[in-house]
Amino acid sequence: MTGKKGEATVTIDKGIDDVHSADFDALLLPGGHSPDALRGDDRFVDFTRGFADSGKPIFAICHGPQLLISADVVRGKKMTTVKPIVVDLKNAGADFFDKEVVVDNDTLVTSRTPDDLPAFNRESPRILNKP
Amino acid sequence: MTGKKGEATVTIDKGIDDVHSADFDALLLPGGHSPDALRGDDRFVDFTRGFADSGKPIFAICHGPQLLISADVVRGKKMTTVKPIVVDLKNAGADFFDKEVVVDNDTLVTSRTPDDLPAFNRESPRILNKP
Repeated sequence: MTGKKGEATVTIDKGIDDVHSADFDALLLPGGHSPDALRGDDRFVDFTRGFADSGKPIFAICHGPQLLISADVVRGKKMTTVKPIVVDLKNAGADFFDKEVVVDNDTLVTSRTPDDLPAFNRESPRILNKP
Repeated sequence: MTGKKGEATVTIDKGIDDVHSADFDALLLPGGHSPDALRGDDRFVDFTRGFADSGKPIFAICHGPQLLISADVVRGKKMTTVKPIVVDLKNAGADFFDKEVVVDNDTLVTSRTPDDLPAFNRESPRILNKP
């Protein structure tokens, strides 16, 4: 699969029916139009919920939190997101902060836009590598 | 401006800074990725709210209701929408129905997808033309 700017190609090694959250250590939700498409299919929403329910690290930027809203796992969580869906995140019960990166309970890392990537990329490995 | 399938061309005669809801009789929100982009700019959200506040007819299909959620005008309204944003519509306080067309108070007409267009196109002119 080639990215929309044509600069990167990724080989998709498994489909949603081949995976279970128990087989992974963490989840990265990179945003774009993809979360809107994925949240329309309950298999992706259930897969996402599995990471939250087991307390595994989740990293989400831009529109990534749309999948977390659909999985109903944002209530009471400290989070940020891209402007168009701030209202959806608040309505779903999250505690919204307009900051470059927000870390909730050393488990959930969120950022707003690609401009926040330096902060997102600083905090995410810290959470992933914690003992 | 040419549509993404290249089949239709529309001339945009006014920009958002040139218009006010008072100058129009009704609002059509046709969905796609556009509402996500528009709701990130408060001018479009305020324009949308103007129609709701003055009780003018609003027609929204697919992702169109995202702008209505941002304008905070869906609370208590009978509505439908496309599956990915059903959770956002419910969280915003709307009364959701999984039907081809839903009409609230002879003012707000919503449908789910292009497949619902026959029903949407049946109800919308009825509302627009009522005495």
